[in-house]
Order: sequence, then C-alpha cells, then structure tokens
Amino acid sequence: VRTTTTDTVTDYPTTERSRLRRLHERGSHGRADVHAVLDTAPLCHVGYVIDGAPYVTPTLHWREGERVYWHGSSASRFLRKALGTQVCMTCSFMDGYVLARSAFNHSVRFRSAMVFGKAQIVEGEEHKTAALRGLIENLFPGRWDTLRPMTPQELKATAILYLDIEEATAKVREGFPNDPEDAGHPVWAGAVPMTYTTVAAEPAPNLMPGIELPDYLRDLISEGRLRAPYRESADEY
Amino acid sequence: VRTTTTDTVTDYPTTERSRLRRLHERGSHGRADVHAVLDTAPLCHVGYVIDGAPYVTPTLHWREGERVYWHGSSASRFLRKALGTQVCMTCSFMDGYVLARSAFNHSVRFRSAMVFGKAQIVEGEEHKTAALRGLIENLFPGRWDTLRPMTPQELKATAILYLDIEEATAKVREGFPNDPEDAGHPVWAGAVPMTYTTVAAEPAPNLMPGIELPDYLRDLISEGRLRAPYRESADEY
Repeated sequence: VRTTTTDTVTDYPTTERSRLRRLHERGSHGRADVHAVLDTAPLCHVGYVIDGAPYVTPTLHWREGERVYWHGSSASRFLRKALGTQVCMTCSFMDGYVLARSAFNHSVRFRSAMVFGKAQIVEGEEHKTAALRGLIENLFPGRWDTLRPMTPQELKATAILYLDIEEATAKVREGFPNDPEDAGHPVWAGAVPMTYTTVAAEPAPNLMPGIELPDYLRDLISEGRLRAPYRESADEY
Repeated sequence: VRTTTTDTVTDYPTTERSRLRRLHERGSHGRADVHAVLDTAPLCHVGYVIDGAPYVTPTLHWREGERVYWHGSSASRFLRKALGTQVCMTCSFMDGYVLARSAFNHSVRFRSAMVFGKAQIVEGEEHKTAALRGLIENLFPGRWDTLRPMTPQELKATAILYLDIEEATAKVREGFPNDPEDAGHPVWAGAVPMTYTTVAAEPAPNLMPGIELPDYLRDLISEGRLRAPYRESADEY
C-alpha cells in the first residue's frame, strides 16, 4: 500500500476509492490541481448507480468553492433515483497522442479530475435561480442580466444537482514517451498535440436585426478565455 | 411511455436503461450513429460499479464490429472486480456552445454515445497481441510493424477489456437555439463552435538522428484523419 502525505488544507482526504493507483502519470490530491481541471473542462461525465447498474451521462458542470453543480431535467426519473447516492464525476480531455517505440509505451497527453460526493438537488426558486445565474456567469460573465428572465415553469422544469467534494484526484500526462531503453529502435517517436479552438461566433438565423455580438463574448473568444481546454504550451499548466 | 420503432438490423434493442428520455436532442438507437461517435472520439469514459459505488475512468477505446475494447492495467485490483459486471461506456465531446435568449434554452453542440455491455478481458498472449495491434492500427494505420515488438512481460502487464454492445444510444445536438418564442428579446443569440485541431508533430527529444516523421503520420495529421472529433461543418455529420 502506497502511503501519501496529505496536507489537510490544500489536499483532499484519501480513502481506498480515491487512492492513486497508477504511478506513471502525475497524480495529485491537491485541491488546486483538481479545481484547475474542473474549471477548464466544458463537459463532465457523471457516473451514477441506478438499481445496481452504472450510468455515465455527459453534462455541463460548474464549480463554486468545494461545490460542483451540474445540469439535469426534472422530468428525469433517473435523476430522482440518484438523489442522495454517491456519484463519481470525471472530467477528462485529451491534449494529444504520445507515440513510443513499442505499443506498450504509447500513451496520450491528457488532463483529468475525478471527484466523489453525494448527489443533491437545489431546491426553491430562489436557490435555483442563483445556481443558474452561476452557470451562465461562469461561462459568459455579463450575460445573465441581458437575458429574458426565467419563468416559474422553466425553473420547475430545470433540475440542478450538486455535490460537495468529499474526495478527488487529478491526473495530468504531458511530454513525450517514457521509453529511454528503446531509444535505439529506429522508429519515429514523439507526440501529436491536439488543441481546442473556438471559431467565429455564428448568429442565430432569426437574430433580431441590429444586434451585434456583445463585447464580453467577442473578448472571451478572441482572448481564448471561453471555458474550453485550450492549452498554449505544456508549460502553461 | 414513448414507443420507439426499432429496426432490428440497423438499430440496437431498447430496454429501460437505454430508452431515449429527452426528446429535444436528436437521439438514435441506430448502429451507424453509435459507431460514428465511438469511432470519432479519442477517449471514452467507462462507468463501473465497484462494491456498490460508481467509478468513471477515462481511457482509450477502439471498436471492431460490435465489440469495443479499452485499455487497462493488470495491476489494477479495480479492473478485476469489474470483470463480468455491466458497464456503461460513454463518449462525448462538445462542438460548441449554443446561446439562447433565456438561460433555460442555453445548450451545447455535442455528439455522444452511451453503450452498455458486460466487461470482459482478453486472455492469452496471441489474443492480447492481436487486440493491441488493433488499437495501434486503428489510430495509426501502418505503425504496428515498425514498432519494437512487445515483450511477454509487457503483455502480461497490459489488460485489455472489451464489451459486446448489448444496447446503445447516440445523441447529437447541433445548430442554433430553439427559442422562436423569444426571437423578439433584444439579446445576441447564436452559437460559438469549438473544434479540435492537431498541430505539428513534436519529435521526442531523444529521437534517433535521421528519423523523419513517417508518411502515414504526416498524412493523418495534414488530412485531419487522426482519430479526433474534427468537424468541418454542421453538415458533415
């Protein structure tokens, strides 16, 4: 059993479910490392156990401190069964392929976070509105106040779930193949980086005439600050 | 209860676990639709139930017919506990944000597939080698025969799992906000597309002098055929 030194202020606690098992990737229980991945990934995958079977659903998430919210539908019997149960939320994205000299050492550049906690639901119009505002403002700061306000019916139809992070791990794999023993094998080795980019915004076909792309959105896009796994270089992380 | 017409040749069977619940996205049980997402996504998220709790792990996957393989480590007690149990493998990626006139109608462009089956393991050196060859050739056709061959120890340390697809769904969301009733609200609405790109290959720092990037890899990259969720336009899918 590997023993980990944990700083109770900056690290998450560790039990069997979050113990880092594979040491050849850079793993961490650090809060800052986990937050960095959660805040960069546009999508998460939430794993539930429903009637004993696993379900993994992709959804938008957003974080406020140690609470992570995600989005659902009130019509889903599925979500109601999940309430109060333990879930595992995983965010991962690939930064590229790593090509080694043997099949064994092939790998990918990636960033991922896995967080554990109990699925809970936001109750009450006021709290729901505040949480949705958190989602919109997290993605597009400045947008909420310009929107057509939510109706009570819409609020009712929206389910916002959250978990308070109990345990979490982050893993990052970057760089090149780790196969110095094979350096003499005459095959190309290296990496093929992969990046996300956002391209020009596309106005809705029925957009009211005269409405320009707002500054906050143009700046988010042109400055690469829209929530997406951009990465300028391996040093950035 | 929604009834679905299923073509038993081209569609997956549907039970409660794979019934399409949310109708405002384009959902499908079609084999071709599911395969298209599985074959495009570079990463999948596999959901297991271990001792009653959910785990979602990101990994590489590859498909051969109705069998989907993924990669693990033999050292993982975790994987051994998962063998023979039902898993849910989900592949999703975002193609952009969809900005509506109300918070309620905000959405994302995405493609996802969710497949259900029983986790099984590839046994025997020969079968393992064939499966790994499948992984490498699936990603980089032509590469396998140029690699330093796997050693028996490496084969032993590699776990390759698979499932035979029992049920599956695919969902695709593209286009623009679906809020014609709000078209008169004076706020910008539309989409911000997001794309993956691969950039120039980076040779390993210890690459043998004189080894050039192989043609198959240069072509994969320059022609955008490396397995990645590229998407030229909304019409492509």
